[in-house]
Amino acid sequence: MRNKTKGFFTLPGEAGYEDLTLELAQKWGADVIRDSDGTALSEKILSSDYDIYSTLCLVRSDNSWAKANRDKLQQNFLMSDPVVATENVLIIDLLKGYFREQFEVNFNDDPKKWWQVFDRTTGQEISEENWEFDKEAGTVTIINTTKWHKYTVNFLAYRIWEAISMYNHITNNWGDREHLMPIDPIYPETQDFMLSYLDKWLQDHPHTNVVRFTSMFYNFCWLWGDDPNLKHRYSDWASYDFSVSPYAITQFEKETGIKITSEDFINNGLLNNTHNVPSEKIRAWMDYVNKFVTTFGGELVDLVHKYGKKAYVFYDDHWVGIEPYSPRFKDFNFDGIIKCVFNAFEARKCAGVKGVETHELRLHPYLFPTGLSGEPTFKAGGNPTKDAKDFWMKIRRALLRAPVQRIGLGGYLHLVEDFPDFVDYIEELANEFRMLRGLHDNDKPYTVPGKVAVLTCWGNLRSWICSGHMHEHPEVALNHVNEALAGLPLDVEYISFDGIRANGIPEDVKVIINCGILDSAWSGGDNWKDPSVVSAITEWVAQGGGFIGIEEPSATIYSSQYFQLSHILGVDRETGRTLSKNKYNYQPCTSHFIMEDTTETLDFGTDIDNIYVIDGKTDVLAHECGSIRVAAREFVNGRGVYASGFKFSPENTRMLFRAILWASGAEKELDCWTTDNVKTECAYFPASNKLVVINNGSDSETTIVKNSKGESINITLKPYAIEIIDA
Amino acid sequence: MRNKTKGFFTLPGEAGYEDLTLELAQKWGADVIRDSDGTALSEKILSSDYDIYSTLCLVRSDNSWAKANRDKLQQNFLMSDPVVATENVLIIDLLKGYFREQFEVNFNDDPKKWWQVFDRTTGQEISEENWEFDKEAGTVTIINTTKWHKYTVNFLAYRIWEAISMYNHITNNWGDREHLMPIDPIYPETQDFMLSYLDKWLQDHPHTNVVRFTSMFYNFCWLWGDDPNLKHRYSDWASYDFSVSPYAITQFEKETGIKITSEDFINNGLLNNTHNVPSEKIRAWMDYVNKFVTTFGGELVDLVHKYGKKAYVFYDDHWVGIEPYSPRFKDFNFDGIIKCVFNAFEARKCAGVKGVETHELRLHPYLFPTGLSGEPTFKAGGNPTKDAKDFWMKIRRALLRAPVQRIGLGGYLHLVEDFPDFVDYIEELANEFRMLRGLHDNDKPYTVPGKVAVLTCWGNLRSWICSGHMHEHPEVALNHVNEALAGLPLDVEYISFDGIRANGIPEDVKVIINCGILDSAWSGGDNWKDPSVVSAITEWVAQGGGFIGIEEPSATIYSSQYFQLSHILGVDRETGRTLSKNKYNYQPCTSHFIMEDTTETLDFGTDIDNIYVIDGKTDVLAHECGSIRVAAREFVNGRGVYASGFKFSPENTRMLFRAILWASGAEKELDCWTTDNVKTECAYFPASNKLVVINNGSDSETTIVKNSKGESINITLKPYAIEIIDA
Repeated sequence: MRNKTKGFFTLPGEAGYEDLTLELAQKWGADVIRDSDGTALSEKILSSDYDIYSTLCLVRSDNSWAKANRDKLQQNFLMSDPVVATENVLIIDLLKGYFREQFEVNFNDDPKKWWQVFDRTTGQEISEENWEFDKEAGTVTIINTTKWHKYTVNFLAYRIWEAISMYNHITNNWGDREHLMPIDPIYPETQDFMLSYLDKWLQDHPHTNVVRFTSMFYNFCWLWGDDPNLKHRYSDWASYDFSVSPYAITQFEKETGIKITSEDFINNGLLNNTHNVPSEKIRAWMDYVNKFVTTFGGELVDLVHKYGKKAYVFYDDHWVGIEPYSPRFKDFNFDGIIKCVFNAFEARKCAGVKGVETHELRLHPYLFPTGLSGEPTFKAGGNPTKDAKDFWMKIRRALLRAPVQRIGLGGYLHLVEDFPDFVDYIEELANEFRMLRGLHDNDKPYTVPGKVAVLTCWGNLRSWICSGHMHEHPEVALNHVNEALAGLPLDVEYISFDGIRANGIPEDVKVIINCGILDSAWSGGDNWKDPSVVSAITEWVAQGGGFIGIEEPSATIYSSQYFQLSHILGVDRETGRTLSKNKYNYQPCTSHFIMEDTTETLDFGTDIDNIYVIDGKTDVLAHECGSIRVAAREFVNGRGVYASGFKFSPENTRMLFRAILWASGAEKELDCWTTDNVKTECAYFPASNKLVVINNGSDSETTIVKNSKGESINITLKPYAIEIIDA
Repeated sequence: MRNKTKGFFTLPGEAGYEDLTLELAQKWGADVIRDSDGTALSEKILSSDYDIYSTLCLVRSDNSWAKANRDKLQQNFLMSDPVVATENVLIIDLLKGYFREQFEVNFNDDPKKWWQVFDRTTGQEISEENWEFDKEAGTVTIINTTKWHKYTVNFLAYRIWEAISMYNHITNNWGDREHLMPIDPIYPETQDFMLSYLDKWLQDHPHTNVVRFTSMFYNFCWLWGDDPNLKHRYSDWASYDFSVSPYAITQFEKETGIKITSEDFINNGLLNNTHNVPSEKIRAWMDYVNKFVTTFGGELVDLVHKYGKKAYVFYDDHWVGIEPYSPRFKDFNFDGIIKCVFNAFEARKCAGVKGVETHELRLHPYLFPTGLSGEPTFKAGGNPTKDAKDFWMKIRRALLRAPVQRIGLGGYLHLVEDFPDFVDYIEELANEFRMLRGLHDNDKPYTVPGKVAVLTCWGNLRSWICSGHMHEHPEVALNHVNEALAGLPLDVEYISFDGIRANGIPEDVKVIINCGILDSAWSGGDNWKDPSVVSAITEWVAQGGGFIGIEEPSATIYSSQYFQLSHILGVDRETGRTLSKNKYNYQPCTSHFIMEDTTETLDFGTDIDNIYVIDGKTDVLAHECGSIRVAAREFVNGRGVYASGFKFSPENTRMLFRAILWASGAEKELDCWTTDNVKTECAYFPASNKLVVINNGSDSETTIVKNSKGESINITLKPYAIEIIDA
């Protein structure tokens, strides 16, 4: 079986290390060689028998054109830092606190038309007679200010250093290497340039089989500061701030009839981050940008196809507007999508994208001397083999559930020379991947019947993701829930409040999970004030559905409760509004199906506090200092479960699985195709009758799995091991 | 000096124990003998040479009149527990969950006029065609309900068992003793009855020198439940729910023009507890009730005076409407006010009342076999001497700062017979009190110049109190701040947002403290959206004022910050709305004036989490896991201090004192009249040149105090000791 030992693996080649490149390509079973940022492929590699991926980022590809067309640079709105007026005149230095190598104030587009000045103490906009800008000084002077009020200016800035290359430049000390500037394809002139640039590029790269776009046009929002203690002021993986320009705003208004202002983007200085409930206007803007990116991006892909090459897109960096989970994504006609992955939900995020043939994971560690936090990787003190194993353990459980077609690495290949055990381990890993991949051929792993739906404001558009990597926001419990779900034998989908309003709850959904804190996009915010949402879910649970709420599910400050589904969850939260209300004196349950595999002290990292039971009908499964941590309740013919937090761990993942089964009345599902040892997991492939069992940790483990006949299968697994058994 | 060894002490006498009564009166230096609930005074005691206090509670004094006039019983609004409609008709059992021995539904006043039915899912009131009541069944039937919505009924209930006597009855197992019912003096008929009852009572009690009203008419709100796990559903020491009736509402509307409904009181089921920001309507209602209670209460006091007796009022139980801190209080013409006290702020609360000659503290422990939580006191296993010392240590520090005229005990005197050390200790305590009392004669202890103002929604009306005793709401940080302030050498006053709007910040205020969680009456809620408040305080700090914020000071969801005074406090809180905003990488201070006496690990009990510094100008004095616990910042000519919580302890009290001095630029005040050992405190009386030093704990302590000449005075104090030194 050739495909079990070779193929589906992308190797980062490196000019100057041709022998190593070809040797490792052979050892790891690579079928593709790619370049990376900072490496090139030599003629010897290019003309070898391997397919070639070439990275291409068109918005920063030709700095001479950018310099000659500075009015076509990408822009965004910034808000000046709030300043308290101590007199009746106030001068604001617009870029104070921002990294002046990243931004340049745009005085070309009439500031009086595009900017806004606010008294943030009253919330009122300052009329334009009362402020004036000074192009030379880079300031705005506000007159007739009210003393002791705070003022800010929303203004347009060009980005004069493209964010990702700026990061690479500074991180790698590239010294006086030219700063690349991002150009904006919204202008017809830029589009003409980019199309002709790509056309020539395609002609100049005959060896390239796959154009690896990194990515399309607009980077996620990343605002840098000039203070060494605040180098990065703001970063959000999915906010659309970097897609703004007067031209785009004008087109948007023509197309949609919606007038959008600087303040819609600045939003009191909060901007519109993915964790918050999105406004209608911002959703419309996202849709407009998505449509443009798909349309023009599709033209670029067509051009690639015209040259007989394939087009893959990188699902990071300039990914804004691509939206792989939007219905438009298929219109790009991409051949593949590549995602850099640290963990399971990122693997599922890539695997779940529809409308492309190939889903590829770029694994970690990156072949680089240091890791993301500056820790040693491929240098003295580093242990890249252990890193690779740990990342693979996180990712592998996702690959049991959903197929991806390829994996690969990136970076400087020569660095592996000093780490022969790494070279050996990647061979093992690549073979393991090919084996796993093969299991999905004409087969689909067994899942519990019915679907589990995660309910957020974003729904399907933010499937398997909150905003960015898990390690960036470990405090967001839904990241941990996503991570747990990513390896469980469940069909998971992401639904939205808008979806419930428009179409109700999908028929095949058996359990809804709502997880997040008050007013987050994940919990739902004001959507919970909508009686149609509350009664739709209430009715659905009454008819047998299961509702699992984590942290502050259904929370909003409205009516007589804080959790609007307290009648289903059986608990509510004391937030200080009902201190004089006495709380029910519950007796905790001594045992419950949900908690049967929770043997250690429950650890959610952080818990939402002051949770109380609403009456005696709620079962308290875990509590601490009088605050409920896990509760369960029957509601008519359905069930509700509450948890005050969630942290990804083997025990908690099992607890969540049990909660899902209990909530949907499917406890018997635990009787087969489940490991009794929570440090192991398994998947059953019915067509081939194969049982795959994995050990997720660094100790040997023994586990029992029952098959559908009730027969026990005993398996002992070495650390990190995988076993495939005829079931 | 007779007044140092005798007098100013009220002894609870007991018929049947005449010799003990008179013996202890002699030993403890009593000048007054009182009766208590459950005890009587015999002729031998009454005709002794002591003044006599007699307790009187007119609203429950004659149950035969109450029974004959059931329509004059006191009432209140209740909300039925929310019920989810599963059909299009819903029957609600009004009193379900309530203690039916406390409440009886009032069907006499037209329910269609006075009640309201709500769909709590939509928040909409149900029109009266869609509901009907059933007097026999005690239910309301709602038709045309929307399935899966929640419904409630606001209805009127008579209270058929007066709350305090109900509590005493049940706690003491009084069996089939008749349930006393509270009558409402709002009706002219009730007033006539009460005046004639009092007149006869005064005639019948020739030995009584002081009528001890317990108290006037309306008890604090105390709703009992019928579930043994929820015996008390709601209790708030200062909410006015028990002063409601159709008659009063009608009078209120006539007098004020304000239409007030059941829903104004029920407030979505949250009621209007003291911890929350009061509505305008409820403030108007409180004012109306206060005016009535003062007017009719004043008539009763006049009658007492007509008989040559004095009238004292108990500052608990039926105290609602009395409002000792309202400007009307003096119009009662009470001769004294008596407060049961557990701690320092309660002593200050009593001491601070203007418009009465005598302030008396009723000390704990109460002479009763068990304490408040059922723990043994005057029975086997109890240690009433230690209890008395511990309570006295808490209270004594307040009595160094503010004079009260009398102390006393209550309960069953005979219980002390088995505790001779208690009898001895009370003699010591009484002598100590008389000594302390004497120091205030024609003297006033030294305080730091200028005032410290605590800013809340309630201002002066809730001076030295949040709602009820500290042990009932230990989670309310302002309780702890009040307790610390109660023993510090500071002039403290309580100011309100309304006061700032109307009159600005009082001239003599040097420091403002704002302490509380979001949307509490203590923090301020929407008041912080008012630019006039924010800019008034900003200007005042800029001009040299000090602002101390604790927990969530100036917090409201508005504008670009969460703490509206973040520019003064130097910190703000991440509540999930700005997760994508990176936070300033601070370096903590290694030393600061505020922290110099904080040697142990800072313990605030609970901290507000996710506090970050806004920029590099904030000094971080304490932090944990990246969240700021104490910070300080200069703002123009003033200063701001932030603390993430506060718990009363010797070290924290000193830290607060230091913060106050630092915020007002008065650090040098620490150079004299301060103990260097935080477990001791002192007060300096300038007229007599006496320095009083107290040891607040159960270990011996040594301390140094510097006098105004900078000379050190060394003092060693035995456990609990007090020393008076010529300074």
